[in-house]
Amino acid sequence: MDMNTDTPYYAVIFTNTLIEDNQAYSEMAVKMEKLARQQAGFIDFESARDSLGISVSYWESLQDIANWKSNADHLFAQSKGRSDWYSWYKVRICLVEREYNFNK
Amino acid sequence: MDMNTDTPYYAVIFTNTLIEDNQAYSEMAVKMEKLARQQAGFIDFESARDSLGISVSYWESLQDIANWKSNADHLFAQSKGRSDWYSWYKVRICLVEREYNFNK
Repeated sequence: MDMNTDTPYYAVIFTNTLIEDNQAYSEMAVKMEKLARQQAGFIDFESARDSLGISVSYWESLQDIANWKSNADHLFAQSKGRSDWYSWYKVRICLVEREYNFNK
Repeated sequence: MDMNTDTPYYAVIFTNTLIEDNQAYSEMAVKMEKLARQQAGFIDFESARDSLGISVSYWESLQDIANWKSNADHLFAQSKGRSDWYSWYKVRICLVEREYNFNK
């Protein structure tokens, strides 16, 4: 169990349900993760999906999050998401105050 | 797209990998979600798993999170998790500052 002392930083919790999973969506999701990882202030990205999809991206500042949200390719993906892919989503912008790990 | 005005509140992002998925783990996970939902200050719970597991619980205050962490049945589950089920996990305590929704 180790404490990370780099907090605070920010998390964007993106929870969503798909109308239907499909190849075009999967390809866009992979592309967007790759692009996010190249942005200034990017720290980490985690995602999982079963009936619900949860993606969490971690950022150094709110400005980094705003910049990523307004990235042109990302704006296109967001628009496609609303028109074609998501039946519902929720975005939460969070300040990560504290964290701890367990490693076996 | 609607804004929720009940922020701030807290999120606990629990990211984990299992040694192996099994019936005992699944049963405990269901039991713990059910128990969490009965605690004071509980707001919501979301989870998804594929290669990674992400569970996010939402709470009214840090004290509610501390109380849930020290709940006797939950302490037992945490201990079983470290000894038998998880190869790795990370817990992040976050202040949810802002949120928005999309509904088709």
